[in-house]
Parts: sequence; C-alpha cells; structure tokens
Amino acid sequence: MHRHQLDFWYDFASPYAYLAAMRIEALAETHAVDIRWRPFLLGPIFAAQGWTDSPFNLFPAKGRYHWRDLARQSAKYGLPFKAPANFPPNSLAAVRIGLHLRDNDQVGPFSRALFAATFGEGRTMSDADVLASVLTGLGIDAGRAIAESQSPGVKARLRAETEEARSRGLFGSPTFLTGDGELFWGNDRLEEAIAWAAGERPGDMR
Amino acid sequence: MHRHQLDFWYDFASPYAYLAAMRIEALAETHAVDIRWRPFLLGPIFAAQGWTDSPFNLFPAKGRYHWRDLARQSAKYGLPFKAPANFPPNSLAAVRIGLHLRDNDQVGPFSRALFAATFGEGRTMSDADVLASVLTGLGIDAGRAIAESQSPGVKARLRAETEEARSRGLFGSPTFLTGDGELFWGNDRLEEAIAWAAGERPGDMR
Repeated sequence: MHRHQLDFWYDFASPYAYLAAMRIEALAETHAVDIRWRPFLLGPIFAAQGWTDSPFNLFPAKGRYHWRDLARQSAKYGLPFKAPANFPPNSLAAVRIGLHLRDNDQVGPFSRALFAATFGEGRTMSDADVLASVLTGLGIDAGRAIAESQSPGVKARLRAETEEARSRGLFGSPTFLTGDGELFWGNDRLEEAIAWAAGERPGDMR
Repeated sequence: MHRHQLDFWYDFASPYAYLAAMRIEALAETHAVDIRWRPFLLGPIFAAQGWTDSPFNLFPAKGRYHWRDLARQSAKYGLPFKAPANFPPNSLAAVRIGLHLRDNDQVGPFSRALFAATFGEGRTMSDADVLASVLTGLGIDAGRAIAESQSPGVKARLRAETEEARSRGLFGSPTFLTGDGELFWGNDRLEEAIAWAAGERPGDMR
C-alpha cells in the first residue's frame, strides 16, 4: 500500500499537543500515513506577535476555559491529565533533545513519554532528572543525549526548524502540515489532517 | 420526554457561529435539548483584553488559516461559504434586532437567515437593506422591528446580556453554556455541549 506523509509540528509546552501525540500514530496507521515528528519552539512566534507568555495566562478567561476543556478532552480519550505546576513549562531542553535524536523511531517515543510525564503526571519537563528518566526508560544513554543536544549543530537546527515553522504560517501547536501544504491547527483537526494526507477531501472540495 | 436546555451565545460577526447556527437545532433535537438563542457583542470583551479588531486581522497567519479552515469546514457540512468583503462586519444593529425579537421562535430563524446571508452569500449585515430583506423573508414587519430595536429598553438589554456573557467567562463566539454552568467554546464543541446538556459525561467524568 502506498504510504502518505504528514508533518506533526509541536511545542512540548503545548497541552493540546499532548492529546495529539498520544493519538496520532494509531490514527495515522488507519490511513497508511507516516508521521514526521517535528518539535519546534512556539515562543519566538508568539513573541513576534507581541505575546511574551502563554495565551492561557495572558487571557485569564480563556486560560480557565482551556484547563477545563483539557480535562474533558482527556477523559473522552481515556488519557490521564494533570496540569504541571508551572505553566507554560520551559521546553527548550526538550526540543533540543528531540532534534538531537533525529531518528523518527526515537523522537516519537521520546515525545510521547515526555508529554505523558508533563501533562499526564504534572512533572517538570525542564528538570534534567525528568528528561533523564524519560530517556533512560527508552533505553537511550541519557547523559550522552543531553550533552550532545547542546551542540552548536542542534542549536542551528532548532533555529532553522523554528524559522521554517514561521515561514510556513504556523501560529500554534499542534499543527499538522500535509505534503501539498495544507495546514491544520489543533488536536481537534487531527482526524481531518490525516484524511487529507491520505487524499480524502471534505464535501465538494474534491 | 424530559427536555434539557442549552444556551447558545453568539456574535453575528463570528463565522464559526454561522456553522454552529446552521447545525444546532437538528443536533439538539436528537438529544431532546431546547436551545436558547442569545446574541451578544464580543467587541467589548475583546476590547477589555486589549483587542480592538478581530484576532483574524490582529494575527495575520491565524487569520489566513481560519479562512481556509472555514472553507473546509463548510464543505464538510455541505454549507455554502463566502467571506464578507469587510471583516469583521458591524453586528450591532443585528444583535439589537435579535434582542428585540426576544421570542425564541423568531430569534432562531432570524439569526440563521442573517448568518446565511453574511457568510453563505457574503452580504453586509450592517446594511439596512440586508436586515430588512431577512426580516421580510420571515414575515416580520421590517420597518417596525428595526425602529423598535433602537429603543432604550433594547439598548439596556444588550448591555445586560453582554455583561452577563463577560461575567460567565465567555471570551469567544460561539459559546455553549449548560444549565449546570459547563462552558464549551467553538463550533467544534457543539456536539459535546449538547451531549453534556442531555446529561452525558465523557469517559471517567461520570
């Protein structure tokens, strides 16, 4: 069967990206879609539009709503949910490790495990202990991965990835981008993004 | 069968509220839910958080995305979609008429017809001609309704409704609010809001 491709862009600090990360591989498989896991930093994109904090914090009514919505959505999917004490968490170390691992077979499991620790258990993703335990749990040499993730090459790659995200019109996380440039924002659009990647079109858009 | 209730809060300027307005009654009927149509103005709530324009215009990447998403979502639902030339439209006259009509049996049909003219045909909802043709099409005396919608009583009611929206934590449109105070934001949450209003709970929230 022909395999399709979908790019999954996410910031580790994004709780809706947690919901998408835990669901995406099973859904993708139903449509023979391969997922490219692409961690990036949303901070510079938010900063460019004048936001220096999460919109959950900048707009309190919106923030209160989203925490409640996340609890409901997690219950719907049967996923545990616990907000981390400090939000948004600093995701810089995590995204560097994600980019260092590079190999999609490692980035996906690392991302899911770190998302689960952060938003399923409320742990602090910027803690070296948390990062190390996640890496060790996947059979990865944690000390080496963390050290190498701070290399100039990884830093350059992070800048390039974040610039690509901005130039392709990303403004939030999670975002799904198909090979033909169709952009879908939010966990709510995951199913539609996968269907689009597999060649399906809604209604009269055929 | 016992009837449940759900408040449907919307600003006529909101394109996602158009999608919800065209779908809500049929979905509500499947769960024996009665809808209360509650037009309000989002402008004062946006202004209070420092926004003096639609977020579609304030954040261009987000705006470009949402127009494309609206075309896709409309195609999915089999609804026509045409963005009005000037966005956001001025919805003040429309919401005043909606509040003047008061009777839910008139507010619903008026709202659907005006949403369809605005986002299905791209017409200008602040034009007296557009408002009059929508009202006349429903068998309502347009001249009288428009004149009476400018009464001090309607203006006071608009202020009270918008203040109630703010005090209940509304920050966007459409919003669905259940009798037990559960808030759902966005057309994407319409199905879940109706299910909640009918007593259903997701996953382990029972």
